[in-house]
Parts: sequence; structure tokens; C-alpha cells
Amino acid sequence: MHTIALVVEYDGTGYHGFQRQTSLPTVAAELERALGVLCGHAVSIVAAGRTDAGVHATGQVVSLETGSELELTRLPLALSAMLRDKHIAVLRAVKRPAGFSARHDALARTYLYRILNRVVPSPLHERRAFFVRSPLDVDAMVAGARPLLGEHDFTSFCAQLPERGRPVRSLERLDIARRGDFVELEVTADSFLHQMVRIIAGTLVEVGRGKRSPQDVAAILASRDRARAGVTAPPHGLYLTGVRYRDPL
Amino acid sequence: MHTIALVVEYDGTGYHGFQRQTSLPTVAAELERALGVLCGHAVSIVAAGRTDAGVHATGQVVSLETGSELELTRLPLALSAMLRDKHIAVLRAVKRPAGFSARHDALARTYLYRILNRVVPSPLHERRAFFVRSPLDVDAMVAGARPLLGEHDFTSFCAQLPERGRPVRSLERLDIARRGDFVELEVTADSFLHQMVRIIAGTLVEVGRGKRSPQDVAAILASRDRARAGVTAPPHGLYLTGVRYRDPL
Repeated sequence: MHTIALVVEYDGTGYHGFQRQTSLPTVAAELERALGVLCGHAVSIVAAGRTDAGVHATGQVVSLETGSELELTRLPLALSAMLRDKHIAVLRAVKRPAGFSARHDALARTYLYRILNRVVPSPLHERRAFFVRSPLDVDAMVAGARPLLGEHDFTSFCAQLPERGRPVRSLERLDIARRGDFVELEVTADSFLHQMVRIIAGTLVEVGRGKRSPQDVAAILASRDRARAGVTAPPHGLYLTGVRYRDPL
Repeated sequence: MHTIALVVEYDGTGYHGFQRQTSLPTVAAELERALGVLCGHAVSIVAAGRTDAGVHATGQVVSLETGSELELTRLPLALSAMLRDKHIAVLRAVKRPAGFSARHDALARTYLYRILNRVVPSPLHERRAFFVRSPLDVDAMVAGARPLLGEHDFTSFCAQLPERGRPVRSLERLDIARRGDFVELEVTADSFLHQMVRIIAGTLVEVGRGKRSPQDVAAILASRDRARAGVTAPPHGLYLTGVRYRDPL
């Protein structure tokens, strides 16, 4: 058996998320179908991040096992050609040691949240960024983000608590910057709770609009109450951009 | 009468170009229809750049005359809302002196040509960049671009010669740089001949792929023979990004 990791990019617009669901279009189902054709047997993939419906990825990582002798240098080309009209591309294919799991061996995930902040929406970034008309105070957003760094119970920023384990996560980075008409949040943590990045983004947008003060964020975090945080920002501004492993892919 | 200039962004994918054509979808027809509703009379617009089918814009400029008292601060919002499902946005509306023409008063136009240069296409940049799999030597492209700067007869880089006037244009800037997986050309001239940017881009891609030497470009230019230049790069990599006037918009 061979264990293989793939780096995957996709436009999440038409999908009911990454994870396979019976009779709904998902990124996993399309990848597994294409891999099954190439491998000649049913393939089951494990992903580093279970992105929600409408969320994009430029650096999703999946792992799989196969007895087939796949030519790894050709695999991205072959899979990307098979999946082109499905809006999925495979950027790299790398051999990993037996037992490797894209999910369980991931040390950290990085997400980008893109906000288009100007007077009118952009036809060129439709479904690619969250449009916010009100001017955002990026300095306030940066100040509001600060208390979220480090290890915390992120219950206030979680749509659905995990069935097992505590809702404690470790945020190692949360950078916010204006780039032209865009305001971009880049966030890295060991892992994320359900809709955590989108609730953080939605809350910080309310800070940027002056509807909350940057000081409110620490109190929201401490309350462990989802109702205290802001609205969940929409999925189409969110991108899974990278996953870190002990041995870089 | 009032003379108004609009800065316009659009996704050119679904259009047969900017300029109005009988019974074909064009950006001008959609803009004139929306402006007609707001002004209460038929409106005729003049554009700085007649972009071809599939070409995008982030900074197209159009001018129009109307007797209506339009509220200029509200106009971008109103027009963008009317044209949102047409993939057109109006970024700014500015009053200009009587007789102003977005076309005849333009001192220079700037275009961006975006090339995605990596092993597989990107689902997130479909119809937004020209995909080139072969690695491009950007230094060679920069060297090839140099002889094009300044005032020249650009017949070799023109699909259809103008009916009036000489095919002489003045290139004040042609910058080429790699940005991540993208290679971007930014080019400014007083005005451009038909498909001139796309033929320049196509020729420089051939230089970047090593199919031609950078030194060939000066000979192509001097030949005044379209057949000597490279293939026309596809429209979906091209963006009209800005137009310069004596009084900035």
C-alpha cells in the first residue's frame, strides 16, 4: 500500500461543503470519484479541513491509501484535467509514510478571510469575497483581534460544539490588513471549531464598523456564549490556504 | 446640459465587447439602458477604451450628456444595483466641463494582462487569467519588452489597422513581474491599436517560453508585419485598469 497526500484547490460555490454527504454534491465525492477511476478501486480520502458549503480552498490537504502504482508527478495533471469542469484542481501529490493522515497529523491550519470594503460590489470578485459597504476601521479590528491570540476556550466563536474534547484552541496568528479595496484576515491555529473563522470575521467586522468596541472582544471570549459574538460572516469570503505538518509537503 | 464621467468595472465574459452592436449583449447597451431609466431619456455614452469580447475592466471611463439633475454621489450605488446581475459596477461619477469626451480627452490608457503560470489551471481564476503551463522566463520577457517602449509604428502588433491615421503609438510603460503563480504585464500608452496588448502579451509569452529570443522583438517591430509577431493572447487575461486625463477623475 502507498499513502499519498494531495494539495487541493477548489471553488466551493457549487458544493455542499467538502465532506461527503449522501446524494449532495461535495468536493470529497468528486475527488474520490476521480481517484477511484485512476486507482481502479474505491478510494476514501481524509481531509485536513472540513470546509463548509461555499467555502473555497487554495491549500486543502487530503490523504489516501492505494495499492495502485500511481505516477505522482503526473497525478496533479491527470486529476486536474478530470476535475476541471468540477472547479477542483490538484496542485501537488506527495508520498507519505504509512499511517499518515492529512487530518490527524496536521499541526496547524491557515485560513484567509477576504472582505471587499468599498461603496459598490465587484463583478470580478462575485462569490470570492464578502462585500461590506460601510468603511472598516482596520486599526480597531487589529486591536479587537489581539485578545483572541493564544490558547482559549472559543465556545463564543463556535456554531456547534464538538461531540468529544474541549472547545479549546490555540490561535498562533491573526493578521488583519487593508490591501487596496480589500480587508484581509489571515488566521492560523492548531485546529478550528465549527464556523470559528467566520464568527471571528463577523465579530471583527462589527468592531470595524464601530458597532462594538475592540475591548468588547475579550468579554465576548470570556463569556463562552455564542450569542454574545457577532453574526457569522458568509462562506464565500473564506479560503483554506494551507496546512502545516512536521514534514512539510 | 450636464456632462458626466463614470468609472466602470465589468466582467467581460458574457459580452460581445464594450461597443454597442445590434442585438448582441454589450457592456455599452446595458449601461445605456440603465442610464436611460435614471435620466428619463435615451442616453448615448462614449468610452475611453473599446474593449473586445471577453476583456474585463476595473477602470473603464465613459462620458455622457444629460439634462437630468442626477445626484452624483448616489449614481454609482443606483447604477451598480441596477447592473449587478449584468456583472457591471459603476465605481465613481464625476461632473466634467461641457464638451468633455472620455475618448478624445484621454491622455493615456493602462491595461493589465494576467497570466497564471503553473502546472495546473486554477478553479478560482477561471476566465480571469490566461493559463500557461510552460515555465516563463520573466527576465527574457522583460528584455523582449524593452524595444517596444517609446513611439513606434506598431503595425506588427495590430489585428486590424485603423481606417484613419497612422498606426503609430507611444508606449510609456511596459512592466512585467512575477507575483506568486502569476506573471503580470502592465502597459500604458497614449492609445492602443486593435488587439495590440494581446498581441504584445502573446509575443512575450513566446519569448518567456524560449520559442523566440528577446532580440527577435525589435526585428518583429521593425518589420511592420503582423505575421511576424506571436499569437494573440486570449481576451480573458486582459483588464482595462485606468485612463488618464489632464484633470484626474
